[in-house]
Amino acid sequence: MSDTYAPGVRHSDPLEPRLSAWEERTDLPLTALAVVFLIGYAWQVLHTSASPTVVLWQEIGLWAIWAVFAVEYVIRFTLARRKGRFIWRHLFDLIVVALPMVRQLRALRLITILKVLNRRVGTTFRGRIGVYVAGTILLVGLSASLAVLDAERHDPDANITTFGDAVWWTMTTISTVGYGDRYPVTVEGRLVAAALMIGGIALLGVVTGVIASWFVQKIAGAEESIEESIRSEVKGLRAEIAELRTELKQAGGQISRP
Amino acid sequence: MSDTYAPGVRHSDPLEPRLSAWEERTDLPLTALAVVFLIGYAWQVLHTSASPTVVLWQEIGLWAIWAVFAVEYVIRFTLARRKGRFIWRHLFDLIVVALPMVRQLRALRLITILKVLNRRVGTTFRGRIGVYVAGTILLVGLSASLAVLDAERHDPDANITTFGDAVWWTMTTISTVGYGDRYPVTVEGRLVAAALMIGGIALLGVVTGVIASWFVQKIAGAEESIEESIRSEVKGLRAEIAELRTELKQAGGQISRP
Amino acid sequence: MSDTYAPGVRHSDPLEPRLSAWEERTDLPLTALAVVFLIGYAWQVLHTSASPTVVLWQEIGLWAIWAVFAVEYVIRFTLARRKGRFIWRHLFDLIVVALPMVRQLRALRLITILKVLNRRVGTTFRGRIGVYVAGTILLVGLSASLAVLDAERHDPDANITTFGDAVWWTMTTISTVGYGDRYPVTVEGRLVAAALMIGGIALLGVVTGVIASWFVQKIAGAEESIEESIRSEVKGLRAEIAELRTELKQAGGQISRP
Amino acid sequence: MSDTYAPGVRHSDPLEPRLSAWEERTDLPLTALAVVFLIGYAWQVLHTSASPTVVLWQEIGLWAIWAVFAVEYVIRFTLARRKGRFIWRHLFDLIVVALPMVRQLRALRLITILKVLNRRVGTTFRGRIGVYVAGTILLVGLSASLAVLDAERHDPDANITTFGDAVWWTMTTISTVGYGDRYPVTVEGRLVAAALMIGGIALLGVVTGVIASWFVQKIAGAEESIEESIRSEVKGLRAEIAELRTELKQAGGQISRP
Repeated sequence: MSDTYAPGVRHSDPLEPRLSAWEERTDLPLTALAVVFLIGYAWQVLHTSASPTVVLWQEIGLWAIWAVFAVEYVIRFTLARRKGRFIWRHLFDLIVVALPMVRQLRALRLITILKVLNRRVGTTFRGRIGVYVAGTILLVGLSASLAVLDAERHDPDANITTFGDAVWWTMTTISTVGYGDRYPVTVEGRLVAAALMIGGIALLGVVTGVIASWFVQKIAGAEESIEESIRSEVKGLRAEIAELRTELKQAGGQISRP
Repeated sequence: MSDTYAPGVRHSDPLEPRLSAWEERTDLPLTALAVVFLIGYAWQVLHTSASPTVVLWQEIGLWAIWAVFAVEYVIRFTLARRKGRFIWRHLFDLIVVALPMVRQLRALRLITILKVLNRRVGTTFRGRIGVYVAGTILLVGLSASLAVLDAERHDPDANITTFGDAVWWTMTTISTVGYGDRYPVTVEGRLVAAALMIGGIALLGVVTGVIASWFVQKIAGAEESIEESIRSEVKGLRAEIAELRTELKQAGGQISRP
Repeated sequence: MSDTYAPGVRHSDPLEPRLSAWEERTDLPLTALAVVFLIGYAWQVLHTSASPTVVLWQEIGLWAIWAVFAVEYVIRFTLARRKGRFIWRHLFDLIVVALPMVRQLRALRLITILKVLNRRVGTTFRGRIGVYVAGTILLVGLSASLAVLDAERHDPDANITTFGDAVWWTMTTISTVGYGDRYPVTVEGRLVAAALMIGGIALLGVVTGVIASWFVQKIAGAEESIEESIRSEVKGLRAEIAELRTELKQAGGQISRP
Repeated sequence: MSDTYAPGVRHSDPLEPRLSAWEERTDLPLTALAVVFLIGYAWQVLHTSASPTVVLWQEIGLWAIWAVFAVEYVIRFTLARRKGRFIWRHLFDLIVVALPMVRQLRALRLITILKVLNRRVGTTFRGRIGVYVAGTILLVGLSASLAVLDAERHDPDANITTFGDAVWWTMTTISTVGYGDRYPVTVEGRLVAAALMIGGIALLGVVTGVIASWFVQKIAGAEESIEESIRSEVKGLRAEIAELRTELKQAGGQISRP
């Protein structure tokens, strides 16, 4: 697998060889674990009528996965050479490990999936960006819907009380439409909304950026042909001068001969 | 017609000669059929007091058109060399053929018109993009208005119950303004809203992309003049060296003559 | 004045010399008239307790100005060589002349001001774009506020009934925020909203485009320095070859002398 | 400190040496004072149950800081050579000094912090733009939340009455989502909203611009390599001609020797 794996944008930092090696090895198992976590979390949020025993085992399972991520963060911190830089650049990982104490923010765990997706896709360009953007929106949207439902459901003033409503609210928020027929009223729900709004702005930015760069590329393509013509012109020039030198050498030979 | 028809961006795939030939021939009749379908659908949605016989004939007509599109998809699938790639790249066509079982999603048929528009316009650049964007928005907006009206009208909690309201809601959604005085409450209506939101984001992206690329082109234009000056400089150089060679030949002649 | 006037982007069409000359001469008086029209319209909308005589004179004045614009359109149509192209390219002018029959759409008259602004500003680049965007938003916003107030005020279900509310609604719409505490309920008010939404999307596009092109220019600036180095390199080359030719001529003289 | 300080985009105007020197010296103390002002203002808005004596001292402190800024503006005006240009280019400073008469607009004082931030960050490029955008949004958001709370709290129709609501409203506004569950009803609150909407549009513009320019840079990077190849080609040409001249000189020596 390591053969087909080209280093991504933020991956295999030359200053942190041990950390990069560790991350390359743990990428896949951690992503799988994050997917399991998301499924478990979704089950917990959507299947509310589970028996107390099932709920207990769900909780134990989710906390066990959390523990794996916490231990993994500590290992990476130990491997990192420059501790300060590591904490700063992996601030999000720290938040993700520290926050799930607050139950409704557990969905942040999906960041782990996104990071791995980002590393894999970072190596290619625009061709797959559509797939990447769609995948990210689906993952973020699903997590946000679960988290906001979990946060709002038991509030007496809440108007997001079913999974359908939560998905609908997520759509209106990430597209920045915001009808206002559904909106969060709890602090945790509003934090989820904040994450979605940032996502919505980034989404608009990426879509626009891709389209703008596509238009610009068309222009740059025309420009490139001018540069290509300069290059061929200069090459022709060089060939001509090489011929000139050969001729001069022959002429010089004729001059010095008599 | 084939003379004035330059191959578009996604058209006339060299790997699929038979498919391309078929698509080129069926483009126009299928677009006409899709227009007929949209008119029939609009009639069905807006003219609610029609007699049962008329309604029956409308239904038969719409299903007959659907059958033509289904058969056309099967033919294209048969013509395609790489079946897997065909399904993946024409995923939208499959959805459009499969979904109209759900009555309110029939307006998706307009995708056929958009695809043909896209092929025709894809050959030119930005000059006609204004016409294209305006046409797309009008088509998408009209279809969405019809579809949301069809989906919402009979729901007791609905607030989109007239065609005027549906058009107004479509406008507030595609511009991402979203006042919230009108909003869909049914699942089908919310699916239409999702399509409109994606359209709104794409619209913002295209408008911004065109404007940004226009500004960048002005900059690139200035740059081009530098490149033009380099080119003329190199050309002058080449002429000078050619003269030099002629002079040297004459001088060489004078040298070797005595 | 004609000295300081550089031809704009869409101005002084070489195919329409008479039309261009006419437009250049009538630009300023027509803009002044449009400003007078807007002031008169604002007075009519905001000063509702005017006596019937004043109202009558206001109406006469506004219709007189409308007549001037209608006559001017006919003159331009007469001057145009290619009639079909003229109607197509000046479609907006036709709408502006034809529509004020509907009283609430009279504010569209401001298009005349915007067009002149556009011609004047079209000659410079980005330096003044901030001023232009701000001016356009102010003009469009003011006209939309007046028009929506005029359209909504007398509707029993309306919630935009004061000028303050109209301005506030205009702001929430053009920024695509759309709280929904105020929204138009009449057809004319919703047409005004549609114009504002288009304005809001264009606004986002221009702001983003300017910022994006500014970033890109910084990159292009770095690129330009490479091109500049190529140019100086080629120039140096040319000088060297010129020297070479002089040396060869002298050498040739020495050769042919004895 | 002056060593590590590179002149920013709008800084150290060559036409205004005295003004630039003054601004460079007062940047840091004024920023510190603006931070103190914001903290004092936040305290005043959030700690409403303070005793009359504390309130009096708060007022005195805030007015004293205002006086320092007013005096500083007058000093800069005196130092400026071209008075008219100074007023035009520092229009915002004038508004900030003149407006705090209206109590709710005092938060505009934060402009001073932003301006200094802008000068410092203006020297670097895109690397730190993320930090800059995040910092600006936090500062603007905090100030807007305080200002809108201050403006709305005592209005009988207000729905923004706690700091939590104010922060939530700020988020929905700057992201242009605008649910409409919270919205300002006072004139001062709506002015704050207008500032936030402008901020939201600028935010979208910057995010999109950065992403678009990043994509474009990737394209430009490919182009640069062509230019690099032209440069090396031209350099090789120059070396070849230099060799040619040396050879000719030697040949010329051989010719003229006998």
